Amino acid sequence: MARPDDRAPDQLRPVRIQRGWLDHAEGSVLIEFGGTRVLCAASVQDSVPRWRRESGLGWLTAEYAMLPRATNTRGDRESVKGRLGGRTQEISRLIGRSIRACVDFKALGENTVVLDCDVLQADGGTRTAAITGAYVALADAVSWMRERKMTKGDPLIDSVSAVSVGVIDGEPRLDLCYLEDVKAGTDMNVVCTGGGSFVEVQGTAEGRPFDRSELDALLDLALGGCTELTRLQNEALGR
Amino acid sequence: MARPDDRAPDQLRPVRIQRGWLDHAEGSVLIEFGGTRVLCAASVQDSVPRWRRESGLGWLTAEYAMLPRATNTRGDRESVKGRLGGRTQEISRLIGRSIRACVDFKALGENTVVLDCDVLQADGGTRTAAITGAYVALADAVSWMRERKMTKGDPLIDSVSAVSVGVIDGEPRLDLCYLEDVKAGTDMNVVCTGGGSFVEVQGTAEGRPFDRSELDALLDLALGGCTELTRLQNEALGR
Amino acid sequence: MARPDDRAPDQLRPVRIQRGWLDHAEGSVLIEFGGTRVLCAASVQDSVPRWRRESGLGWLTAEYAMLPRATNTRGDRESVKGRLGGRTQEISRLIGRSIRACVDFKALGENTVVLDCDVLQADGGTRTAAITGAYVALADAVSWMRERKMTKGDPLIDSVSAVSVGVIDGEPRLDLCYLEDVKAGTDMNVVCTGGGSFVEVQGTAEGRPFDRSELDALLDLALGGCTELTRLQNEALGR
Amino acid sequence: MARPDDRAPDQLRPVRIQRGWLDHAEGSVLIEFGGTRVLCAASVQDSVPRWRRESGLGWLTAEYAMLPRATNTRGDRESVKGRLGGRTQEISRLIGRSIRACVDFKALGENTVVLDCDVLQADGGTRTAAITGAYVALADAVSWMRERKMTKGDPLIDSVSAVSVGVIDGEPRLDLCYLEDVKAGTDMNVVCTGGGSFVEVQGTAEGRPFDRSELDALLDLALGGCTELTRLQNEALGR
Amino acid sequence: MARPDDRAPDQLRPVRIQRGWLDHAEGSVLIEFGGTRVLCAASVQDSVPRWRRESGLGWLTAEYAMLPRATNTRGDRESVKGRLGGRTQEISRLIGRSIRACVDFKALGENTVVLDCDVLQADGGTRTAAITGAYVALADAVSWMRERKMTKGDPLIDSVSAVSVGVIDGEPRLDLCYLEDVKAGTDMNVVCTGGGSFVEVQGTAEGRPFDRSELDALLDLALGGCTELTRLQNEALGR
Amino acid sequence: MARPDDRAPDQLRPVRIQRGWLDHAEGSVLIEFGGTRVLCAASVQDSVPRWRRESGLGWLTAEYAMLPRATNTRGDRESVKGRLGGRTQEISRLIGRSIRACVDFKALGENTVVLDCDVLQADGGTRTAAITGAYVALADAVSWMRERKMTKGDPLIDSVSAVSVGVIDGEPRLDLCYLEDVKAGTDMNVVCTGGGSFVEVQGTAEGRPFDRSELDALLDLALGGCTELTRLQNEALGR
Repeated sequence: MARPDDRAPDQLRPVRIQRGWLDHAEGSVLIEFGGTRVLCAASVQDSVPRWRRESGLGWLTAEYAMLPRATNTRGDRESVKGRLGGRTQEISRLIGRSIRACVDFKALGENTVVLDCDVLQADGGTRTAAITGAYVALADAVSWMRERKMTKGDPLIDSVSAVSVGVIDGEPRLDLCYLEDVKAGTDMNVVCTGGGSFVEVQGTAEGRPFDRSELDALLDLALGGCTELTRLQNEALGR
Repeated sequence: MARPDDRAPDQLRPVRIQRGWLDHAEGSVLIEFGGTRVLCAASVQDSVPRWRRESGLGWLTAEYAMLPRATNTRGDRESVKGRLGGRTQEISRLIGRSIRACVDFKALGENTVVLDCDVLQADGGTRTAAITGAYVALADAVSWMRERKMTKGDPLIDSVSAVSVGVIDGEPRLDLCYLEDVKAGTDMNVVCTGGGSFVEVQGTAEGRPFDRSELDALLDLALGGCTELTRLQNEALGR
Repeated sequence: MARPDDRAPDQLRPVRIQRGWLDHAEGSVLIEFGGTRVLCAASVQDSVPRWRRESGLGWLTAEYAMLPRATNTRGDRESVKGRLGGRTQEISRLIGRSIRACVDFKALGENTVVLDCDVLQADGGTRTAAITGAYVALADAVSWMRERKMTKGDPLIDSVSAVSVGVIDGEPRLDLCYLEDVKAGTDMNVVCTGGGSFVEVQGTAEGRPFDRSELDALLDLALGGCTELTRLQNEALGR
Repeated sequence: MARPDDRAPDQLRPVRIQRGWLDHAEGSVLIEFGGTRVLCAASVQDSVPRWRRESGLGWLTAEYAMLPRATNTRGDRESVKGRLGGRTQEISRLIGRSIRACVDFKALGENTVVLDCDVLQADGGTRTAAITGAYVALADAVSWMRERKMTKGDPLIDSVSAVSVGVIDGEPRLDLCYLEDVKAGTDMNVVCTGGGSFVEVQGTAEGRPFDRSELDALLDLALGGCTELTRLQNEALGR
Repeated sequence: MARPDDRAPDQLRPVRIQRGWLDHAEGSVLIEFGGTRVLCAASVQDSVPRWRRESGLGWLTAEYAMLPRATNTRGDRESVKGRLGGRTQEISRLIGRSIRACVDFKALGENTVVLDCDVLQADGGTRTAAITGAYVALADAVSWMRERKMTKGDPLIDSVSAVSVGVIDGEPRLDLCYLEDVKAGTDMNVVCTGGGSFVEVQGTAEGRPFDRSELDALLDLALGGCTELTRLQNEALGR
Repeated sequence: MARPDDRAPDQLRPVRIQRGWLDHAEGSVLIEFGGTRVLCAASVQDSVPRWRRESGLGWLTAEYAMLPRATNTRGDRESVKGRLGGRTQEISRLIGRSIRACVDFKALGENTVVLDCDVLQADGGTRTAAITGAYVALADAVSWMRERKMTKGDPLIDSVSAVSVGVIDGEPRLDLCYLEDVKAGTDMNVVCTGGGSFVEVQGTAEGRPFDRSELDALLDLALGGCTELTRLQNEALGR
C-alpha cells in the first residue's frame, strides 16, 4: 500500500531549514517537514530563574504552540480559553527536556535560552520538527553568545534531532504525515543525539498493543531518520 | 530630519502581500509592511453564534496575537499567563469592527468568518498591516464560499485598508516604523474603505495634545496611504 | 426629529458633579450626565510600580467597571466570570491615557494615583463621564497631596474633559444618551484639554462609513461640548 | 468606655433607606448604616437555572462585592485578579441563604431574582446592611412582579433583617462600626425574620473563646436590633 | 422516629482517630465520624507569610478539599475547573479560624503550620470531622517542633473539637449523617474548646426559621458532643 | 551497590491492593507500591461526552492528582493556584490512554467510566501504581455494570499494568522508589497488557543519553515486573 506522497517506508518528507527567519531573535529557524511548518526562535536572557541563581549554571526552556488555523479545522486559542491544554504543555516539556540533553549548563553560564516553537502549519510530526528546528535555532543563539563571550567554552555537547515513526496497516513507516498519523496502530516519537544515542523514546499503542519485534523495527527506522536529520542540520549550519 | 529608512514623509514602506500562504485556510495572506510581518487566516464556518441564529445574517470576528519573539525583547505568552492583555483585545476588536464595515451580512448568509491575525514579526503598524491583510484573506475566503454557493450575491460591499500616521519632531509622517512610533508625539490609526470614506479614526496624543491643523494634516496623509494600499490589495487580488 | 429628551443637537445633558462623595478616598466625585452616573475615586499611593522606581517620576492608572445592574438588563460580573472583558480593559486604558495627558509626572514625584471609575447607572457616554469626573477627583487628590507636601510644584498641567458625539438620522448630535447611541451611524468619543487641544479622538462607523465633512462637524460639536464641561469642572472645583 | 460615636451599647447607627435609587432595576435601595453605604439591586428574570426547570419553583441568588475604594486603603479588584476571594463568596452565599428564608418559591413561579449588593463605602457591618437593604429591594421587585401577574399570590412569607453584635472590652454592643469591629473579642452576625425568629446565627471568637452567657447577651442585643430594623424597613416600604 | 443508624439523638457516630497515617507530614491523622473519612496533615514551615515577618509571631492556615468521588455522585475537580468553589473556601477559612483559637502564636515562633484536610469519603459533618482531626494532627506537629526546640514553650493553649447538630422532624440530634443533613430544618456547626467555651457557632435555618429554645437545645447537644470528642482526642493522643 | 530497601534489581516493592475502599464508587482500590499509596476510584456515568453521542460507543477518562502533603515537602494545591500543572495533565492523559487500550467501547455501550487516581502518599512510581490500581477499580466497576445489564458482553479485552524501570549507577532496576528515581540516569515507564504486549513505552534520558542495549535491558525488566503485577491484579480480583 503506497504512502499518500509515494515515499518509501524509510524515507523522510522533504525537509527545509531556513535560518535567520526573524530579525530580532538571537537564533531563528523556519523548519518544514513536508507540509508541517514550525517557526523556532531562540531567545537569550542574561539571567536564570530564581531557583537556579548563584549555581553557576544556565538554563533552557521551551514553549510549543499552534496557530489556530495551522490545522484543517480552526482550533480555539489557548490564550482566549485562558488555560494551556495538556497536549501543549506535554509537548513543551518534551522539547525542553530533549534539547537540554545536548547542553552543558556550566559552559552556558548563568544565562537562559528560551525556545519558542510555533506551528504555523500542521501536517503531522509537529513536535519532532520543532525539536529538530529548535536545535538549529539554539546553535545560532549559542554562536551569538560566544561572539559576545557570554559562555565558558562550547555549551553544545552534541546535537539533537527527532522523528516520528509508526505502524500503518502492519508496515513500519518513517516520518508520518497527518493522514498516516490518524491511521497508525502504533505511534512513536524518538529523539536522538547526533551520536546516535536515545534521548527520549515515546511509543503509544493507538489501537492494538505492540510487541517487541514491532518496537525494534520502529526504533531501527527512527535511528535511520535521525541520522539523516542530523546530516541536514549540519548542512544547514554550514558544518 | 531623515526617516530611519530614508522614506519621504508621505511614503509607505515596501508592502508585500502573499496570498495562499497556508494550505488549510479558506483564505490566507502573509502581509509585510517593511519589517512587520503578519499572517492573516480567514476561516469559514457554516454556522453563526447563538445570538445570531435564525436571523438570516452571517457574522465575522477577528483575533489578533503576537508571537513571543515578534518583538525585540521576548514577551510572555498570553496563553501561559492565562489571560488576554488589554492591548490584544483592543486590537482584535478594532480589526473585527473595521472589516465588518465592508461586509453585507445578509449576502454572507448564516456563516461565520473568523480572521486570525498573528504577528510573526513586529516593526510598528502591526494592527494596520493586520487589517489590510485580513481584507485580502477575507476576499479569498469569500471567493471560496461563492464557488460553493454558500452566499447570496456578493458579501463584499467595499474593500478596507488601514495605515498609521504620526507627528515626529513636528513632521507628519505616513506608516511609522517602530523607531518612529516610540518617538511620535501624536499617533493615529486610520481605517478607510476603498471608496475613500472613514471606517475608524483613532488619534492619541502620546506627548503634547494636538490641534485641529495637525489632525487635518494627518488625515490627509492617511487617506493618501490608504488609496495606495487599496491599489496594492487590488493588484494582489488580480483585480 | 426631536431628541428623546428634547435637547438641541449641540446641548449637553444636565451635568451634576458632587465632590467628596466618599469618606476614605483622597479625591472622589459622583458625576452625572443625565441618567449616567459614575463614581470616580482617586487613591494616592506613596510609591510607583516597579518599572518606574528611582526615575523621580510618578504614575497614574485607571480602572473602569460597571455594576451588574447599571444597565437595563443585568450583566454578569467580570469578577465572577474570572476575566476582564475587552470593552472594560479598552475603556480603562483610554481613561488612564487621557488623564495622564494633563499630569506632570516629575511634579507628582514618586507617587501613584489610581482612578477608579465605577458606573452605578448607565445611559450612554459612561466613558466620557468617567474621564470628566476622574479629572475632578484627581484635582482633589492633588490638593490633598500638595497640603502634605508630597509634590514638587503643581502636577496638573491642564484640565481634561470628554464627550461623545454621533450622527443620528443624518444629524450630528452632542452627548448621546443610550437610545441615541444604539441608533448612531457614526459614533465618536473626543477627549480635550481645557485649553481646547485634542488628547484623543476615536471615531467609529457603526453602520455606513463617514466622510471628511461629517468628521469635521462632529469635531466642532465635541469641542463646544468640552468647553462647556471644562467650565462645569472649574465651577465644581470653585475655581 | 464610650463608643466612637457615643451611641448606647444597644443603639443602632443612623439607618437610611432610599428606595428606587436606580432607574433600571425592578427594585433598588441605597442603604446606609452610619458610614456604611450599600447599593442593593433586585433584578427579575423570567426563567430559572437549569437544575430548577419544570419544578414550578422560582429561585433567588445574591452577589456581594466591594468597590476598590470603599475601604480606607484601596483594595485590588477581584475582576482584575481574576478570582473571587473567599470572603466575597462567603458573604454572597450568606445573603442569598438569608433572603431565601422569607421567600415562597412556589408563589414566585419559575422566575429568578438576583440581588446585587455592592458596597460603595465600608464602615463595618456591610453584610448585615446588605441583607437588610436587599430585603427592601426584593419587596419592590416582588411588587413589580405582582403588578405584572408574574407570581401566584404573595411570594414574601416574612421580612428579613440583620445586624452585627460583638463584645468590646467586655461590653456587648449592637451594630459595630469598623473601629469597634477590629477590637471585638467576639463578633456575631444575626439574621432574623420580622417575626423574631432566627434565620442565621454566626458567632466567632476573634480572640478569647466565649461562654454561654456572653452568647445569650449578644443574641438579646441582636434581636432588639433586628426588631428596630424591621420597623425601619416597614417604614421605608410605607407599610 | 429512629435515626438511620439507630443512634440515640445525643449520640455520636463511631469515631476513629488514626495518628501517623502519612510518612512525610509532621503530624497526620485519618479521622472517621461513621462513614465520613478525612485525612488531616499538618505541615511545618520555618517561615511566616510576608505580612507576618519580624513580628515574632507564627501563623497557621488550613485548606479543605474533597476528592471527586468522596460523594455519592462524582463531583468535578476544582483544579480542573480552575477555581475554588465558595463552599471550599468558606470551610477552609472556618477550619483555620477555629484551630487558631487554640494557638499561642508567640510560643509558636516565626513558623507556619499548614493544615490540609482532604475528605476521602463524605457522609455528613465533614467540616466538623476535619476540625476535630486537624487539632490532633496539629498536636503531633507541635510535639515534633518542640523536640527540635522550634517553639518557645507550649503553643497549644487549649484543644479544639467540633460537631454538627440539627433539628430533624422536630427532634434535636447530634452529629448528623448525610441522610439526616439533607432533611434537617435547622443545621448548626459548633466549635468548642476542650474547656467548654465556644469558638464558633454557625446556625442556619434550612427550612423554617428557628427560635431561641431550639437554639438552646442544639447548643446543649453540641456542648455534650464536644466534651466526648475532647475525650477521644485526648485518648488518641495518649494523654 | 544495594538498593535502599535491599531488594534485588528485578524485584518489585511489596504491592498491596485493597478493593472496595470507598462506599460510593462503583469500583475503588487503595493500591500500595511500598510507600506509594494511590486511591483509585472508578465512577460510572450512563452517558458519554457530546462528541461521542449516538455512536453506540462508550468512553473512559482519567484524572490524576496528588494531595499537597503526599510528598516530603508540601506542594501547593492546583485548585488554589487555579491551573493544572503540565505534569498532572500529562499523567492524567497517560492513565486514560493506557486503560483505554484494554476496553471494548462497543461492549461498554454509551456509558462513561471516570477513573480518579489520587496520590495519598508518594514514594516514586505514582503513575505506574495509579495505572495498575485503576485497572482493578475499573474491573469492579465493569462487574457492577454487568450486574445491571448496562453492557453488551464483556468490555474488558485484556488487563493492563505498569511499572517504572531505570538505570542507577549503571544497573538496570525494577520499580524505582523516590530515592532511586532522583538518581536514575535513564528513567522509563512501561505499560503492558496482561498478555505481555506493550501499550506505552516512555523512556527519558535524565542525564546521559542511553543506547539500544540499555533500552533492551530495561524493557526486559519491565516485562517481568508487569507479569508479576498482572498476577497480583488477578489474585486481588479473585480470578
